[in-house]
Amino acid sequence: MDYSTNFSKSTSKKKVVAVVGGGLVGALNACYFAKRGFQVEVFESREDIRQAKIVKGRSINLALSHRGRQALKQVGMEDTIVSKGIPMHSRMIHSLNGTQYPIPYGKKGQCIFVMLCSVTAAAETYSNTKLNFAHKLLNWINHTLTFSLSISLSLFLKYLIVGCDGAFSAIRKQFLRQSRFNFSQTYIPHGYLELTMPPINGEFAMKPNYLHIWPRNTFMMIALPNLDKTFTCTLFMPFDEFENVTTGDQVIEFFQKYFPDAIPLIGADALKRDYFRLPAQAMVSVKCSPYHLSDKCVLMGDAAHAVVPFYGQGMNAGFEDCLVFNEIMDQLNEDFSAVLPEYTRVRVPDDHAIADLAMYNYVEMRSHVNSKWFLFRKYIDNFLHIIMPRTIIPLYTMVTFTRTRYHEAVKRWHWQDKVRNDIVHSSLYKGI
Amino acid sequence: MDYSTNFSKSTSKKKVVAVVGGGLVGALNACYFAKRGFQVEVFESREDIRQAKIVKGRSINLALSHRGRQALKQVGMEDTIVSKGIPMHSRMIHSLNGTQYPIPYGKKGQCIFVMLCSVTAAAETYSNTKLNFAHKLLNWINHTLTFSLSISLSLFLKYLIVGCDGAFSAIRKQFLRQSRFNFSQTYIPHGYLELTMPPINGEFAMKPNYLHIWPRNTFMMIALPNLDKTFTCTLFMPFDEFENVTTGDQVIEFFQKYFPDAIPLIGADALKRDYFRLPAQAMVSVKCSPYHLSDKCVLMGDAAHAVVPFYGQGMNAGFEDCLVFNEIMDQLNEDFSAVLPEYTRVRVPDDHAIADLAMYNYVEMRSHVNSKWFLFRKYIDNFLHIIMPRTIIPLYTMVTFTRTRYHEAVKRWHWQDKVRNDIVHSSLYKGI
Repeated sequence: MDYSTNFSKSTSKKKVVAVVGGGLVGALNACYFAKRGFQVEVFESREDIRQAKIVKGRSINLALSHRGRQALKQVGMEDTIVSKGIPMHSRMIHSLNGTQYPIPYGKKGQCIFVMLCSVTAAAETYSNTKLNFAHKLLNWINHTLTFSLSISLSLFLKYLIVGCDGAFSAIRKQFLRQSRFNFSQTYIPHGYLELTMPPINGEFAMKPNYLHIWPRNTFMMIALPNLDKTFTCTLFMPFDEFENVTTGDQVIEFFQKYFPDAIPLIGADALKRDYFRLPAQAMVSVKCSPYHLSDKCVLMGDAAHAVVPFYGQGMNAGFEDCLVFNEIMDQLNEDFSAVLPEYTRVRVPDDHAIADLAMYNYVEMRSHVNSKWFLFRKYIDNFLHIIMPRTIIPLYTMVTFTRTRYHEAVKRWHWQDKVRNDIVHSSLYKGI
Repeated sequence: MDYSTNFSKSTSKKKVVAVVGGGLVGALNACYFAKRGFQVEVFESREDIRQAKIVKGRSINLALSHRGRQALKQVGMEDTIVSKGIPMHSRMIHSLNGTQYPIPYGKKGQCIFVMLCSVTAAAETYSNTKLNFAHKLLNWINHTLTFSLSISLSLFLKYLIVGCDGAFSAIRKQFLRQSRFNFSQTYIPHGYLELTMPPINGEFAMKPNYLHIWPRNTFMMIALPNLDKTFTCTLFMPFDEFENVTTGDQVIEFFQKYFPDAIPLIGADALKRDYFRLPAQAMVSVKCSPYHLSDKCVLMGDAAHAVVPFYGQGMNAGFEDCLVFNEIMDQLNEDFSAVLPEYTRVRVPDDHAIADLAMYNYVEMRSHVNSKWFLFRKYIDNFLHIIMPRTIIPLYTMVTFTRTRYHEAVKRWHWQDKVRNDIVHSSLYKGI
């Protein structure tokens, strides 16, 4: 109750913002607003995980690439986070017969990072930022946010609400009550579960600087390294198939058939046990528009655009949201009645594009990556990129290693596809 | 409070169903379930409109065609409703220069009907059906439906809930809380408003047996006849454009530019006044899946699939839902644990197809209908239909005058399009 007083005090200041959701995007947003001199109140529904017991992390989709790095750089956090991350220069493809081969992500020196430290600590270093944990938003009616613990926060005119409360955003529910709010949530038929691959003799059980992939057409497994020398393996599979595997013996049989090289590395006993630790989790793709409600509220991160995790861009797109919003605040002098509609106008097509690309990669990553045609196309693309570096840029490179707007990357990709096909065809016809 | 007693009594019977929403689809469902011997409780949020003052009806999208008629026929209501309707055999296109020309809907004798009487009265004729008006559903938690007026209805195991409560369904909100429920709501940039065209000397101001259309590319107006010899004119236009017309003089100026022939028929003074009676209304397309929640609840009509009104199939698809559900109850002996998943499996692809077709016609109806290419294609399609009546069936005919499943109609349409193009091209090349 000490709280309500604080809230009232803060509203008497000039620039105040309530960030709902203290995850990655919420914490980064707090840094951005704090740096601009706003009084920032962050409300996170969970306890402070740093004070909780060991959390079995879900590493899914936490590969940091260029967009995320640029967003971190703007608030001086890039170097710290990159230095604590693990670089991955290539995918490492595991064939059924046990052979492995790498497919680089980009040119020499280009890599993505497994992100292994939190943004929360950085947000707390700002004196004008307050993190309120265990504050679950119950509702938001008539300019009042009501949280669990019977705490209400009356929002005066100058408050901006930033909804960064994830794929199942409570803030977004208010948007759904408005007329003309476009919204879709699409669950894919696949679920995922996570397994841990322990270190061997204190070292990584597989090469650490790779994103390991076992593509098996209708399903796949990936593995990302952790700081403690373990790998987190994530198995993606249709829910129907998960239902067919109900005993420890069936797990082993299944792995023997599809991922035989992983059994000794995970350990047969651990596999039998951990496979059933949690039920398979669902994955959802969320799109909506507009992102703002008058000049009072804006959605960012998964709350605005949850994507399936197959392009490794979920976090990067959320971080870039903060950067784009910041750029627009610069352009329009923090006049939210102009900034918010402009943010919707600029950002919606890009977020929709990355959501579509992630859905596209949902098929590509588990099946095409395994085919000769895919490798041939990659080869041709890389070759053309080398001889015409400004004309032909592989899609993955545009998305992962540049800030080319997502929707423009898609447009350019279609154009390049046409050019490449023309080149390949004319080469074939000429007998080259 | 008399009520709660009734509810309790009804639960002691064998087969009970709660229909939430007493609109067209809810009332028709009540008839279907009553005819099968269920005890039916219908809960409608509005007052009984038959006892209310004159309702300025929204005639939008109430054209009855084959699917709706078949659904009415099954419960013995087709003849009554058709006899009270107004048949429309053709569209009547109004060009900018004032000329009019008809485009028939199908072959001679095929027509659609403006539906002008309610289904509610028919539902009331069943002694085992009870209509509860002014019962707004507030929430549905733990097997209890709570309505306004502080009435709760505890749902025992044998109750089936049928959600027919429209595009903004309160029942559907419960589905959104479940995992893996796919949902989208898409608003189109157009809004609509309605105007009345009065009779002239006691007679219709225009030919009555037509659906009048003024296609003007980015916007359009349509007019449907009413029993009192008026026409309801509906103007469809982007919201942006509505915002540009703010004074009576601007309305007249706008109509003079685009619908000059309609001004004397509506009357300039009425036009200036009625145009501003209500703000332009939004139109939404809703898709979702699955339609059922365990063996307890099923969605039908707009609650499951609100469509934009440009194919005249909203009501017909909703009525066909009742018919399809009834057919599946026959096949599976009213075992809801089997009926509900089967209904989802069968009906979702068809409803999604008609939602897409309605969106397609949203462009086609206001622009292509005006073009020579559209008329040429219609001409070729009709010609091919005459010489190959079983092979080539125009899409509009399949949708409007058959019960070909919507998604099969779409598949066949794509195939026919290819065939027709091949025929046209080979004719052109051969100089025929």
